[in-house]
Amino acid sequence: MINVGIVGLGRLGKEYAKYLAHDINTARLVAACSISEKELVFAKNELGVPFLFKDYEEMLKQADIEAIFVISSTDQHAAHIIMALQHGKHVFSEKPLAVSIEACQKVARISESHPELICQVGFVRRYDPSYQDAKIKVGEGLIGKPFLVKSQTVDKDFESGFQIQYVGKSGGIFHDYNIHDIDLVRWFLESEIKSVYAIGGAFKYPEFAEAGDADNVMTIIKLENESMAVIGASRTAMHGHDTYTEIVGTEGSLRIGRPSSKNRVEIYDKHGARQECVATFWERFEDAFLIMAKDFIACIEENIKPETTIADAVKATQAAIACTLSFKEEREIKL
Amino acid sequence: MINVGIVGLGRLGKEYAKYLAHDINTARLVAACSISEKELVFAKNELGVPFLFKDYEEMLKQADIEAIFVISSTDQHAAHIIMALQHGKHVFSEKPLAVSIEACQKVARISESHPELICQVGFVRRYDPSYQDAKIKVGEGLIGKPFLVKSQTVDKDFESGFQIQYVGKSGGIFHDYNIHDIDLVRWFLESEIKSVYAIGGAFKYPEFAEAGDADNVMTIIKLENESMAVIGASRTAMHGHDTYTEIVGTEGSLRIGRPSSKNRVEIYDKHGARQECVATFWERFEDAFLIMAKDFIACIEENIKPETTIADAVKATQAAIACTLSFKEEREIKL
Amino acid sequence: MINVGIVGLGRLGKEYAKYLAHDINTARLVAACSISEKELVFAKNELGVPFLFKDYEEMLKQADIEAIFVISSTDQHAAHIIMALQHGKHVFSEKPLAVSIEACQKVARISESHPELICQVGFVRRYDPSYQDAKIKVGEGLIGKPFLVKSQTVDKDFESGFQIQYVGKSGGIFHDYNIHDIDLVRWFLESEIKSVYAIGGAFKYPEFAEAGDADNVMTIIKLENESMAVIGASRTAMHGHDTYTEIVGTEGSLRIGRPSSKNRVEIYDKHGARQECVATFWERFEDAFLIMAKDFIACIEENIKPETTIADAVKATQAAIACTLSFKEEREIKL
Amino acid sequence: MINVGIVGLGRLGKEYAKYLAHDINTARLVAACSISEKELVFAKNELGVPFLFKDYEEMLKQADIEAIFVISSTDQHAAHIIMALQHGKHVFSEKPLAVSIEACQKVARISESHPELICQVGFVRRYDPSYQDAKIKVGEGLIGKPFLVKSQTVDKDFESGFQIQYVGKSGGIFHDYNIHDIDLVRWFLESEIKSVYAIGGAFKYPEFAEAGDADNVMTIIKLENESMAVIGASRTAMHGHDTYTEIVGTEGSLRIGRPSSKNRVEIYDKHGARQECVATFWERFEDAFLIMAKDFIACIEENIKPETTIADAVKATQAAIACTLSFKEEREIKL
Repeated sequence: MINVGIVGLGRLGKEYAKYLAHDINTARLVAACSISEKELVFAKNELGVPFLFKDYEEMLKQADIEAIFVISSTDQHAAHIIMALQHGKHVFSEKPLAVSIEACQKVARISESHPELICQVGFVRRYDPSYQDAKIKVGEGLIGKPFLVKSQTVDKDFESGFQIQYVGKSGGIFHDYNIHDIDLVRWFLESEIKSVYAIGGAFKYPEFAEAGDADNVMTIIKLENESMAVIGASRTAMHGHDTYTEIVGTEGSLRIGRPSSKNRVEIYDKHGARQECVATFWERFEDAFLIMAKDFIACIEENIKPETTIADAVKATQAAIACTLSFKEEREIKL
Repeated sequence: MINVGIVGLGRLGKEYAKYLAHDINTARLVAACSISEKELVFAKNELGVPFLFKDYEEMLKQADIEAIFVISSTDQHAAHIIMALQHGKHVFSEKPLAVSIEACQKVARISESHPELICQVGFVRRYDPSYQDAKIKVGEGLIGKPFLVKSQTVDKDFESGFQIQYVGKSGGIFHDYNIHDIDLVRWFLESEIKSVYAIGGAFKYPEFAEAGDADNVMTIIKLENESMAVIGASRTAMHGHDTYTEIVGTEGSLRIGRPSSKNRVEIYDKHGARQECVATFWERFEDAFLIMAKDFIACIEENIKPETTIADAVKATQAAIACTLSFKEEREIKL
Repeated sequence: MINVGIVGLGRLGKEYAKYLAHDINTARLVAACSISEKELVFAKNELGVPFLFKDYEEMLKQADIEAIFVISSTDQHAAHIIMALQHGKHVFSEKPLAVSIEACQKVARISESHPELICQVGFVRRYDPSYQDAKIKVGEGLIGKPFLVKSQTVDKDFESGFQIQYVGKSGGIFHDYNIHDIDLVRWFLESEIKSVYAIGGAFKYPEFAEAGDADNVMTIIKLENESMAVIGASRTAMHGHDTYTEIVGTEGSLRIGRPSSKNRVEIYDKHGARQECVATFWERFEDAFLIMAKDFIACIEENIKPETTIADAVKATQAAIACTLSFKEEREIKL
Repeated sequence: MINVGIVGLGRLGKEYAKYLAHDINTARLVAACSISEKELVFAKNELGVPFLFKDYEEMLKQADIEAIFVISSTDQHAAHIIMALQHGKHVFSEKPLAVSIEACQKVARISESHPELICQVGFVRRYDPSYQDAKIKVGEGLIGKPFLVKSQTVDKDFESGFQIQYVGKSGGIFHDYNIHDIDLVRWFLESEIKSVYAIGGAFKYPEFAEAGDADNVMTIIKLENESMAVIGASRTAMHGHDTYTEIVGTEGSLRIGRPSSKNRVEIYDKHGARQECVATFWERFEDAFLIMAKDFIACIEENIKPETTIADAVKATQAAIACTLSFKEEREIKL
């Protein structure tokens, strides 16, 4: 049994905490940290977490834990990871690693100096059964040599009001949305990114433009092995969360996630033949989050390298920074 | 060039007339017969048909035509076909051949006594490119030996008001709807029907029950070669016309028509991911009707036996009669 | 924490045991019973079950358990349930309850005499998120008044070799496959079955005919409230397990499970645009089995009536018996 | 009746000629021109074209025709159009108008000096019923304000051997494939193109790289009204021709053509649940080509401006030239 703690009990933090409390039979959630009294009450009453902290360092010092889940806000990820490593804890962190490249590299350095500690970043799609299946099929040569990836992260519109509030902290749409697509591009094409060219706009919510961000963006990516990718992100879909990825190879292609149907029910009524779509990334990737959390615990138990490392996170953040710059300066950016 | 006449210029008759006037370059529509002045005016003004008749026999006697399209109401099909044959004309008739078995057999006898005349009945689905493709695939052994057919004829609800008016003349839902499915069952399973067991009800429109008919029915069919079928009909779908057929074999199955999408457009909006469906059988089978009419003309030109003969129509009507009896007497009927 | 035992550790029993051992945090699997040494070794070594029994009654007497999961072979369900009730244990039993109506009624009587004990039968589809969603939508009136259910249970062909061995014990295809569809018909149409008319054959594997059974069957069902259903079963599909249900109402219809895709990956290659399908009912309903097992434990904890009761199981078995008789005697059977 | 002539009787030319000979009842194909004896024999024997020419100017001078269909090779389009206009003929030309901007502008100038003559360029997708339906839905506001178009032209791999031979004449993949997508972008977003950024490679057939072209490309487009587009082209799909377009708006999105299924048949076999796809653009757009040809004849009869004008073709070619330059020089090109 691995004793774990968690920092951050917001929307996503609560879900992780529930998994750790209930669904991973080799882990025990013994400590939780939040600056919100209400969130700590939730951890205590709903999940029975015995040790609660308002101060993160105190948790690291006092709680009998081997591993930490960092589900705090994006701007705190780096500091929380570093502190955890310095206290000798294994770390799982939600993506993105950080908004600045300096912060990323600092995390990378410290992580490298603690090779005995597992340090995993939550690129959840790699753990989704459909993406896993696609990766296996590509590996088996089903589509020949892959040379093009198209991928998108699209949220249902109702998230926008919420998002505009924390767009400053999150680093913007490329960091918050496309970081996943960037990771998938690297994963499927097995190459590093050479250059990016991004465009976009605040087509529905001018508030994002005012914050220097966008509500819809598209990016073309060149990779070092001469393959290519196109990634998109949107905050404004009406039908639901719509993550979609296409991997094109010389002998065929794979497409993951169209439509992003909620379940196996089709409705035939005056609107035609239709399927409801998943409303949120959580609804889409609920299973994958659990598989990922279990994988992290298993990596600790068996002392093996996780699927997604700090190095992956650094590369993804570098590309997200380049995308943001390309979008702002309206030119191609070489990495 | 084959000179043709048409009797019946209702909804469907108008469409046939347009095809004959414009789209079959080896046929010329030179005569039209209707009891409706308005319909004759349409034929003259819209289609330029030179010779118009209120009396059917007069058209047969006077018009310089080799072939007749019988698109009159169901209760007149038999009489119109017989009279045309007796005047030495090739005949294409809309389905069903007749409501009574006596009428069917009389047509069959007279047709047999005129082996020089083409006599084709409009089982339009056999001419639909998708059904054609399925037939070829079954013939090539793609699904092994077929042993089960599921087929349905489903109309959009808005037809019901119209249908209740002529349910008396049409012979009811088994004759009017399932006659197509019965024909497909015989075509794909290559056997004759041994028994039927039908149930149904007027679930939405009690008017159909009052007329001794139903708005939704289901029938199980046993065939002489021990294969089986399930056919259904509905007058009450909200999403559109929805013809669907499934052919199950020992090595696979084919499914035709799901969903009955109107075109290749998908709509993603607050109702989910959806496709509009075809509204009517015409919208679904528009192409097939033209292919069928062209085939009839080609059969005359080349003097070959058509795909769907009077014998097929007699068999289908026998089965429709048995279905109706089974539905009314609530028991299995052997043919 | 509820202490539970399990009897039967075959294919499905193992899966239940894993759930009980790992995934239900309010249950503890403390005892397992099997006549197979190998299965008991599995329970001990893989799942850490502390108390193992070759004799079922001994487990009931000696083990400190509140509840039993009966996952033994169909012909033993009734005896195992009865004995468990008599020892004061809550019981969850896999479907079907029994093959004979006498056995069913005996279970029902004894269950009624122990109103303090939860007795749930595993109609797993009611717990599947898609079926749950459909039930809610029907309840909300989305499709008006439902009057027709079409439902099928279709297995991938590779199961057949295995199934022919135990077709004697299982009661045949109506008990083993259609029992689920029968339950869904009652659930969605909210009425009891009035009569059935079943046909079928051994179209691919004559062995089933020799055993008095079939590899493909179709049944028409009339319900007491005048609604209707068509259910089918097949042991011979090439593409995968293919459970499908359609609920037709006066204002629309719902369709669940088409195609029975394995995941969200589509393959585009020389075979066209395609999706792999789930291979087994387990792959299709894995989630639902866990939800169902959790629900049983929750019913014990909160002392509430389960979704699927002995009464449901008795009704379903009565219908399955009638279907079998109809198939064998080639006539409609009234219940 | 409009008398028409045709120049070019290659693959596509033959199809146009058949339509003109048989399927447009207000046009008569009275003259055909080709440098190939074999093609002229086809026109005479198969289609009964009375007047045949090896010399284009001779046809223009001698034949009693009001209109010309220019279906010659891309490098001759401009010269053939100009000569036809100078002889006072209405002109329909296959796309693209020309490969060089000078040739385009020359055609434009001469066309403008003959305002009495209809001059239409074959952007066939605008005439496809699905694209038509999408345009209407966008116009009705179904998806709010459109701000993003994704569009692709993808050919089945078997075309490649053929294409490598005439890649020199055609202007390359942006002119030959993406010209359609460029036109759709302008049509749906109702704005002119401001800049393009294109990448690509010869991922499967190095021959295309040797010819200075690519077998797969992707382009990002900025429009003057601040909306955006992503277009792609591929010569190497294994599953079939796969034209696809997505129009994203503030209140929803439309997707046209996924999957590019051949017909309504689904196959369920050991490969899963699958649909065969259309093999060629002709199979996909056969209907649209006829609708387009009929529209041109109707424009002449009624003296109205066609849907797709020389101005559209000039704009599209300018963008295709910019894409080609961007691809070759690896930088964003402003128009």
